Amino acid sequence: MIPALSAPPPAEETSSDTRCRILATAERFFREIGYQKTTVADIAKTLRMSPANVYRFFDSKKAINEAVVARIIGEVEARIAAIADRPGIAAEARLREIIVFLHRDAVGRFTGHPRMHEMIEAAMSESWNVCRHHVDRITAVLERVIADGAAKGEFAAEDPAVAARCVHTAIVRFCHPVLVVQCPEDFVPALDAMIAFLMGALRAGPRVA
Amino acid sequence: MIPALSAPPPAEETSSDTRCRILATAERFFREIGYQKTTVADIAKTLRMSPANVYRFFDSKKAINEAVVARIIGEVEARIAAIADRPGIAAEARLREIIVFLHRDAVGRFTGHPRMHEMIEAAMSESWNVCRHHVDRITAVLERVIADGAAKGEFAAEDPAVAARCVHTAIVRFCHPVLVVQCPEDFVPALDAMIAFLMGALRAGPRVA
Repeated sequence: MIPALSAPPPAEETSSDTRCRILATAERFFREIGYQKTTVADIAKTLRMSPANVYRFFDSKKAINEAVVARIIGEVEARIAAIADRPGIAAEARLREIIVFLHRDAVGRFTGHPRMHEMIEAAMSESWNVCRHHVDRITAVLERVIADGAAKGEFAAEDPAVAARCVHTAIVRFCHPVLVVQCPEDFVPALDAMIAFLMGALRAGPRVA
Repeated sequence: MIPALSAPPPAEETSSDTRCRILATAERFFREIGYQKTTVADIAKTLRMSPANVYRFFDSKKAINEAVVARIIGEVEARIAAIADRPGIAAEARLREIIVFLHRDAVGRFTGHPRMHEMIEAAMSESWNVCRHHVDRITAVLERVIADGAAKGEFAAEDPAVAARCVHTAIVRFCHPVLVVQCPEDFVPALDAMIAFLMGALRAGPRVA
Protein backbone atom coordinates (compact mmCIF):
# COMPACT_ATOMS: atom_id res chain seq x y z
CA MET A 1 0.00 0.00 0.00
CA ILE A 2 2.87 2.35 0.85
CA PRO A 3 5.47 2.25 -1.93
CA ALA A 4 9.18 2.32 -1.11
CA LEU A 5 10.84 5.67 -1.69
CA SER A 6 11.88 5.92 -5.31
CA ALA A 7 15.54 6.70 -4.66
CA PRO A 8 17.79 4.68 -2.34
CA PRO A 9 19.21 6.68 0.58
CA PRO A 10 22.32 8.67 -0.28
CA ALA A 11 25.57 7.07 0.79
CA GLU A 12 26.53 9.74 3.27
CA GLU A 13 23.23 10.31 4.97
CA THR A 14 23.45 12.12 8.30
CA SER A 15 21.61 11.02 11.45
CA SER A 16 19.30 13.94 11.09
CA ASP A 17 18.42 12.90 7.52
CA THR A 18 17.66 9.37 8.66
CA ARG A 19 15.48 10.63 11.49
CA CYS A 20 13.65 12.81 9.06
CA ARG A 21 13.07 9.98 6.57
CA ILE A 22 11.76 7.72 9.35
CA LEU A 23 9.27 10.38 10.41
CA ALA A 24 8.10 11.13 6.89
CA THR A 25 7.51 7.43 6.21
CA ALA A 26 5.82 6.89 9.57
CA GLU A 27 3.49 9.80 8.94
CA ARG A 28 2.43 8.32 5.58
CA PHE A 29 1.77 4.97 7.23
CA PHE A 30 -0.21 6.55 10.09
CA ARG A 31 -2.27 8.56 7.63
CA GLU A 32 -2.95 5.81 5.12
CA ILE A 33 -2.92 2.55 7.09
CA GLY A 34 -3.53 3.94 10.57
CA TYR A 35 -1.50 4.11 13.75
CA GLN A 36 -2.84 0.86 15.16
CA LYS A 37 -1.92 -1.34 12.21
CA THR A 38 1.47 0.22 11.46
CA THR A 39 4.49 -1.59 12.88
CA VAL A 40 8.07 -0.43 13.27
CA ALA A 41 9.00 -3.33 10.96
CA ASP A 42 6.75 -1.90 8.21
CA ILE A 43 8.44 1.47 8.47
CA ALA A 44 11.92 -0.08 8.46
CA LYS A 45 11.14 -2.29 5.45
CA THR A 46 9.86 0.64 3.38
CA LEU A 47 13.06 2.52 4.22
CA ARG A 48 15.21 -0.53 3.40
CA MET A 49 16.74 -0.56 6.84
CA SER A 50 16.57 -2.95 9.79
CA PRO A 51 14.06 -2.42 12.60
CA ALA A 52 17.13 -2.23 14.89
CA ASN A 53 18.27 0.82 12.97
CA VAL A 54 14.90 2.52 13.45
CA TYR A 55 15.16 1.74 17.18
CA ARG A 56 18.54 3.52 17.23
CA PHE A 57 16.55 6.70 16.61
CA PHE A 58 13.27 6.01 18.38
CA ASP A 59 12.60 3.77 21.39
CA SER A 60 9.14 2.72 20.31
CA LYS A 61 6.24 3.36 17.96
CA LYS A 62 4.94 5.71 20.64
CA ALA A 63 8.19 7.74 20.42
CA ILE A 64 7.86 7.88 16.62
CA ASN A 65 4.28 9.08 16.94
CA GLU A 66 5.29 11.77 19.42
CA ALA A 67 7.92 13.02 16.97
CA VAL A 68 5.45 12.96 14.06
CA VAL A 69 2.84 14.82 16.08
CA ALA A 70 5.46 17.28 17.34
CA ARG A 71 6.46 18.01 13.75
CA ILE A 72 2.87 18.69 12.67
CA ILE A 73 2.33 20.80 15.77
CA GLY A 74 5.53 22.72 15.11
CA GLU A 75 4.31 23.64 11.63
CA VAL A 76 0.94 24.83 12.94
CA GLU A 77 2.56 26.86 15.69
CA ALA A 78 5.01 28.49 13.30
CA ARG A 79 2.19 29.47 10.96
CA ILE A 80 0.01 31.07 13.61
CA ALA A 81 2.97 32.80 15.28
CA ALA A 82 3.80 34.38 11.91
CA ILE A 83 0.22 35.66 11.62
CA ALA A 84 0.28 36.93 15.22
CA ASP A 85 3.45 38.93 14.66
CA ARG A 86 2.50 40.49 11.35
CA PRO A 87 3.03 44.24 11.74
CA GLY A 88 0.49 46.95 10.97
CA ILE A 89 -2.59 44.69 11.10
CA ALA A 90 -5.36 45.14 13.66
CA ALA A 91 -5.46 42.53 16.44
CA GLU A 92 -8.99 41.53 15.46
CA ALA A 93 -7.92 40.78 11.89
CA ARG A 94 -4.93 38.74 13.05
CA LEU A 95 -7.05 36.79 15.53
CA ARG A 96 -9.62 36.07 12.86
CA GLU A 97 -6.93 34.85 10.49
CA ILE A 98 -5.43 32.57 13.15
CA ILE A 99 -8.81 30.99 13.93
CA VAL A 100 -9.61 30.49 10.25
CA PHE A 101 -6.16 28.94 9.75
CA LEU A 102 -6.60 26.54 12.68
CA HIS A 103 -9.97 25.43 11.33
CA ARG A 104 -8.83 24.97 7.73
CA ASP A 105 -5.71 23.16 8.84
CA ALA A 106 -7.73 20.71 10.97
CA VAL A 107 -10.28 20.13 8.22
CA GLY A 108 -7.58 19.63 5.58
CA ARG A 109 -5.52 17.36 7.76
CA PHE A 110 -8.23 15.13 9.21
CA THR A 111 -11.11 14.86 6.78
CA GLY A 112 -10.42 12.57 3.87
CA HIS A 113 -7.93 10.59 5.97
CA PRO A 114 -10.21 8.51 8.16
CA ARG A 115 -7.28 6.82 9.93
CA MET A 116 -5.44 10.03 10.76
CA HIS A 117 -7.39 10.44 13.98
CA GLU A 118 -5.83 7.20 15.32
CA MET A 119 -2.44 8.81 15.70
CA ILE A 120 -4.00 11.83 17.38
CA GLU A 121 -6.03 9.67 19.74
CA ALA A 122 -2.91 7.65 20.53
CA ALA A 123 -1.05 10.87 21.25
CA MET A 124 -3.90 12.14 23.42
CA SER A 125 -4.02 8.98 25.49
CA GLU A 126 -0.33 7.95 25.53
CA SER A 127 1.47 11.27 25.21
CA TRP A 128 -0.83 13.76 26.80
CA ASN A 129 2.02 16.16 27.58
CA VAL A 130 2.76 16.65 23.90
CA CYS A 131 -0.87 17.64 23.29
CA ARG A 132 -1.16 19.82 26.36
CA HIS A 133 2.01 21.65 25.41
CA HIS A 134 0.54 22.33 22.00
CA VAL A 135 -2.71 23.65 23.41
CA ASP A 136 -0.75 25.84 25.82
CA ARG A 137 1.38 27.28 23.03
CA ILE A 138 -1.58 28.01 20.77
CA THR A 139 -3.31 29.67 23.68
CA ALA A 140 -0.15 31.71 24.31
CA VAL A 141 -0.21 32.99 20.71
CA LEU A 142 -3.89 33.94 21.05
CA GLU A 143 -3.07 35.66 24.33
CA ARG A 144 -0.29 37.71 22.70
CA VAL A 145 -2.67 39.03 20.05
CA ILE A 146 -5.44 39.71 22.58
CA ALA A 147 -3.02 41.52 24.91
CA ASP A 148 -1.79 43.61 21.99
CA GLY A 149 -5.40 44.45 21.04
CA ALA A 150 -6.15 45.38 24.65
CA ALA A 151 -3.07 47.62 24.84
CA LYS A 152 -4.18 49.44 21.69
CA GLY A 153 -7.78 49.84 22.86
CA GLU A 154 -9.24 47.42 20.33
CA PHE A 155 -10.26 44.92 22.99
CA ALA A 156 -11.45 45.45 26.53
CA ALA A 157 -10.40 42.01 27.78
CA GLU A 158 -9.27 42.46 31.39
CA ASP A 159 -7.21 39.28 31.56
CA PRO A 160 -5.84 38.30 28.14
CA ALA A 161 -4.72 34.89 29.42
CA VAL A 162 -8.24 33.96 30.51
CA ALA A 163 -9.75 35.48 27.35
CA ALA A 164 -7.35 33.42 25.22
CA ARG A 165 -8.37 30.20 26.99
CA CYS A 166 -12.02 31.09 26.49
CA VAL A 167 -11.53 31.75 22.77
CA HIS A 168 -9.54 28.56 22.27
CA THR A 169 -12.11 26.48 24.17
CA ALA A 170 -14.99 28.11 22.31
CA ILE A 171 -13.56 27.07 18.93
CA VAL A 172 -12.81 23.46 19.91
CA ARG A 173 -15.62 22.29 17.63
CA PHE A 174 -13.81 23.86 14.68
CA CYS A 175 -10.28 22.63 15.49
CA HIS A 176 -10.44 19.38 17.46
CA PRO A 177 -9.37 16.45 15.23
CA VAL A 178 -12.28 14.29 16.36
CA LEU A 179 -15.04 16.90 16.35
CA VAL A 180 -13.99 18.35 13.00
CA VAL A 181 -14.60 14.97 11.41
CA GLN A 182 -17.53 13.79 13.52
CA CYS A 183 -19.91 16.75 13.72
CA PRO A 184 -21.96 17.62 10.67
CA GLU A 185 -21.20 21.08 9.37
CA ASP A 186 -24.77 22.31 9.15
CA PHE A 187 -25.37 22.11 12.79
CA VAL A 188 -23.01 24.60 14.28
CA PRO A 189 -22.86 28.30 13.53
CA ALA A 190 -20.78 29.20 10.52
CA LEU A 191 -17.22 29.93 11.60
CA ASP A 192 -17.69 33.58 10.59
CA ALA A 193 -20.67 33.94 12.92
CA MET A 194 -18.73 32.31 15.73
CA ILE A 195 -15.75 34.60 15.21
CA ALA A 196 -18.00 37.68 15.18
CA PHE A 197 -19.59 36.48 18.43
CA LEU A 198 -16.22 35.96 20.12
CA MET A 199 -14.95 39.35 18.93
CA GLY A 200 -18.00 40.87 20.62
CA ALA A 201 -16.91 39.23 23.87
CA LEU A 202 -13.38 40.59 23.49
CA ARG A 203 -14.59 44.11 22.76
CA ALA A 204 -17.10 44.00 25.61
CA GLY A 205 -14.69 43.06 28.37
CA PRO A 206 -15.84 42.58 31.94
CA ARG A 207 -19.25 43.76 33.08
CA VAL A 208 -19.47 47.41 34.03
CA ALA A 209 -21.22 47.33 37.41
CA MET B 1 -22.49 -8.36 37.10
CA ILE B 2 -26.00 -6.91 36.88
CA PRO B 3 -28.22 -8.50 39.50
CA ALA B 4 -31.78 -9.47 38.65
CA LEU B 5 -34.41 -7.07 39.93
CA SER B 6 -35.27 -8.02 43.49
CA ALA B 7 -39.01 -8.36 42.94
CA PRO B 8 -40.58 -10.40 40.15
CA PRO B 9 -42.74 -8.39 37.78
CA PRO B 10 -46.29 -7.77 39.00
CA ALA B 11 -48.89 -10.09 37.52
CA GLU B 12 -50.86 -7.40 35.74
CA GLU B 13 -48.08 -5.39 34.26
CA THR B 14 -49.08 -3.07 31.42
CA SER B 15 -47.18 -2.75 28.15
CA SER B 16 -45.94 0.61 29.24
CA ASP B 17 -44.57 -0.86 32.49
CA THR B 18 -42.76 -3.58 30.56
CA ARG B 19 -41.27 -1.06 28.16
CA CYS B 20 -40.13 0.99 31.09
CA ARG B 21 -38.52 -1.98 32.84
CA ILE B 22 -36.71 -2.97 29.65
CA LEU B 23 -35.30 0.52 29.30
CA ALA B 24 -34.24 0.78 32.95
CA THR B 25 -32.44 -2.56 32.76
CA ALA B 26 -30.85 -1.72 29.41
CA GLU B 27 -29.58 1.57 30.77
CA ARG B 28 -27.91 -0.21 33.71
CA PHE B 29 -26.27 -2.68 31.33
CA PHE B 30 -25.08 0.06 28.99
CA ARG B 31 -23.66 2.02 31.91
CA GLU B 32 -21.98 -0.84 33.70
CA ILE B 33 -21.06 -3.37 31.04
CA GLY B 34 -21.11 -1.10 28.02
CA TYR B 35 -23.25 -0.88 24.91
CA GLN B 36 -20.98 -3.09 22.80
CA LYS B 37 -20.98 -6.08 25.14
CA THR B 38 -24.65 -5.95 26.13
CA THR B 39 -26.99 -8.27 24.25
CA VAL B 40 -30.76 -8.30 24.07
CA ALA B 41 -30.54 -11.80 25.58
CA ASP B 42 -28.75 -10.37 28.67
CA ILE B 43 -31.46 -7.78 29.14
CA ALA B 44 -34.24 -10.37 28.71
CA LYS B 45 -32.62 -12.80 31.12
CA THR B 46 -32.27 -10.19 33.85
CA LEU B 47 -35.94 -9.35 33.40
CA ARG B 48 -36.90 -13.04 33.43
CA MET B 49 -38.51 -12.77 30.05
CA SER B 50 -37.74 -14.23 26.65
CA PRO B 51 -35.70 -12.26 24.09
CA ALA B 52 -38.77 -12.58 21.83
CA ASN B 53 -40.76 -10.63 24.38
CA VAL B 54 -38.16 -7.84 24.40
CA TYR B 55 -38.36 -7.79 20.59
CA ARG B 56 -42.13 -7.28 20.84
CA PHE B 57 -41.27 -3.84 22.23
CA PHE B 58 -38.05 -2.97 20.44
CA ASP B 59 -36.83 -4.09 17.02
CA SER B 60 -33.17 -4.14 17.91
CA LYS B 61 -30.52 -3.14 20.43
CA LYS B 62 -30.21 0.04 18.42
CA ALA B 63 -33.91 0.77 19.01
CA ILE B 64 -33.47 0.14 22.73
CA ASN B 65 -30.51 2.49 22.80
CA GLU B 66 -32.47 5.17 21.00
CA ALA B 67 -35.22 4.90 23.58
CA VAL B 68 -32.73 5.00 26.48
CA VAL B 69 -30.98 8.03 25.02
CA ALA B 70 -34.32 9.70 24.30
CA ARG B 71 -35.32 9.23 27.93
CA ILE B 72 -32.09 10.78 29.25
CA ILE B 73 -32.43 13.60 26.73
CA GLY B 74 -36.05 14.15 27.73
CA GLU B 75 -35.03 14.61 31.36
CA VAL B 76 -32.30 17.09 30.46
CA GLU B 77 -34.61 19.06 28.20
CA ALA B 78 -37.36 19.21 30.82
CA ARG B 79 -34.91 20.50 33.42
CA ILE B 80 -33.47 23.27 31.29
CA ALA B 81 -36.90 24.28 29.95
CA ALA B 82 -38.05 24.68 33.56
CA ILE B 83 -35.07 26.95 34.27
CA ALA B 84 -35.68 28.93 31.07
CA ASP B 85 -39.30 29.62 31.96
CA ARG B 86 -38.78 30.59 35.58
CA PRO B 87 -40.49 33.96 36.03
CA GLY B 88 -38.92 37.05 37.53
CA ILE B 89 -35.31 36.02 36.97
CA ALA B 90 -32.94 37.93 34.69
CA ALA B 91 -32.14 36.21 31.40
CA GLU B 92 -28.44 36.20 32.22
CA ALA B 93 -29.03 34.35 35.49
CA ARG B 94 -31.26 31.77 33.78
CA LEU B 95 -28.75 31.25 31.00
CA ARG B 96 -25.97 30.81 33.52
CA GLU B 97 -28.01 28.25 35.43
CA ILE B 98 -28.81 26.29 32.28
CA ILE B 99 -25.14 26.13 31.28
CA VAL B 100 -24.08 25.07 34.77
CA PHE B 101 -26.81 22.41 34.77
CA LEU B 102 -25.72 21.04 31.38
CA HIS B 103 -22.12 20.81 32.55
CA ARG B 104 -22.90 19.17 35.90
CA ASP B 105 -25.32 16.76 34.30
CA ALA B 106 -22.71 15.65 31.74
CA VAL B 107 -19.98 15.31 34.36
CA GLY B 108 -22.24 13.36 36.71
CA ARG B 109 -23.56 11.11 34.00
CA PHE B 110 -20.33 10.30 32.17
CA THR B 111 -17.40 10.46 34.55
CA GLY B 112 -17.11 7.44 36.80
CA HIS B 113 -18.92 5.31 34.20
CA PRO B 114 -16.19 4.68 31.65
CA ARG B 115 -18.48 2.58 29.44
CA MET B 116 -21.31 5.10 29.34
CA HIS B 117 -19.79 6.88 26.37
CA GLU B 118 -20.26 3.72 24.23
CA MET B 119 -24.01 4.17 24.15
CA ILE B 120 -23.62 7.83 23.29
CA GLU B 121 -21.11 7.09 20.55
CA ALA B 122 -23.42 4.39 19.21
CA ALA B 123 -26.27 6.90 19.22
CA MET B 124 -24.08 9.50 17.50
CA SER B 125 -23.05 7.12 14.75
CA GLU B 126 -26.18 4.96 14.35
CA SER B 127 -28.94 7.36 15.38
CA TRP B 128 -27.65 10.75 14.50
CA ASN B 129 -31.15 12.19 14.16
CA VAL B 130 -31.83 11.55 17.85
CA CYS B 131 -28.72 13.50 18.79
CA ARG B 132 -29.28 16.29 16.32
CA HIS B 133 -32.83 16.74 17.56
CA HIS B 134 -31.49 17.04 21.08
CA VAL B 135 -28.91 19.63 20.13
CA ASP B 136 -31.58 21.56 18.23
CA ARG B 137 -33.93 21.54 21.19
CA ILE B 138 -31.28 22.64 23.67
CA THR B 139 -30.29 25.41 21.29
CA ALA B 140 -33.97 26.40 21.02
CA VAL B 141 -34.18 26.76 24.81
CA LEU B 142 -31.03 28.90 24.85
CA GLU B 143 -32.50 30.97 22.03
CA ARG B 144 -35.72 31.58 23.99
CA VAL B 145 -33.77 32.95 26.96
CA ILE B 146 -31.48 35.05 24.76
CA ALA B 147 -34.45 36.48 22.83
CA ASP B 148 -36.16 37.30 26.12
CA GLY B 149 -32.98 39.01 27.37
CA ALA B 150 -32.71 40.94 24.11
CA ALA B 151 -36.34 42.05 24.33
CA LYS B 152 -35.73 43.35 27.84
CA GLY B 153 -32.52 45.16 26.93
CA GLU B 154 -30.24 42.83 28.88
CA PHE B 155 -28.60 41.49 25.76
CA ALA B 156 -27.79 43.18 22.47
CA ALA B 157 -27.74 39.98 20.42
CA GLU B 158 -29.08 40.86 16.98
CA ASP B 159 -30.03 37.32 16.00
CA PRO B 160 -30.88 35.18 19.05
CA ALA B 161 -30.88 31.97 16.96
CA VAL B 162 -27.30 32.52 15.82
CA ALA B 163 -26.23 33.66 19.30
CA ALA B 164 -27.76 30.50 20.80
CA ARG B 165 -25.83 28.30 18.38
CA CYS B 166 -22.63 30.17 19.21
CA VAL B 167 -23.18 29.75 22.96
CA HIS B 168 -24.00 26.07 22.61
CA THR B 169 -20.98 25.42 20.39
CA ALA B 170 -18.70 27.42 22.69
CA ILE B 171 -19.59 25.23 25.67
CA VAL B 172 -19.17 21.90 23.86
CA ARG B 173 -16.02 21.21 25.90
CA PHE B 174 -18.16 21.38 29.06
CA CYS B 175 -21.11 19.31 27.87
CA HIS B 176 -20.01 16.83 25.21
CA PRO B 177 -19.97 13.29 26.64
CA VAL B 178 -16.57 12.49 25.15
CA LEU B 179 -14.80 15.78 25.87
CA VAL B 180 -16.11 16.00 29.42
CA VAL B 181 -14.39 12.73 30.21
CA GLN B 182 -11.31 13.09 28.01
CA CYS B 183 -10.04 16.61 28.61
CA PRO B 184 -8.27 17.35 31.86
CA GLU B 185 -10.04 19.98 33.92
CA ASP B 186 -7.06 22.24 34.56
CA PHE B 187 -6.57 23.04 30.99
CA VAL B 188 -9.67 24.93 30.02
CA PRO B 189 -10.97 28.12 31.58
CA ALA B 190 -13.11 27.57 34.65
CA LEU B 191 -16.75 27.34 33.63
CA ASP B 192 -17.43 30.60 35.47
CA ALA B 193 -14.83 32.44 33.41
CA MET B 194 -16.26 30.96 30.23
CA ILE B 195 -19.80 31.99 31.14
CA ALA B 196 -18.65 35.53 31.97
CA PHE B 197 -16.90 35.69 28.60
CA LEU B 198 -19.99 34.52 26.70
CA MET B 199 -22.23 36.95 28.59
CA GLY B 200 -19.90 39.72 27.41
CA ALA B 201 -20.53 38.63 23.83
CA LEU B 202 -24.30 38.64 24.38
CA ARG B 203 -24.25 42.10 25.94
CA ALA B 204 -21.95 43.46 23.25
CA GLY B 205 -24.01 42.46 20.27
CA PRO B 206 -22.90 43.22 16.73
CA ARG B 207 -20.13 45.70 16.04
CA VAL B 208 -21.14 49.34 15.98
CA ALA B 209 -19.58 50.62 12.77
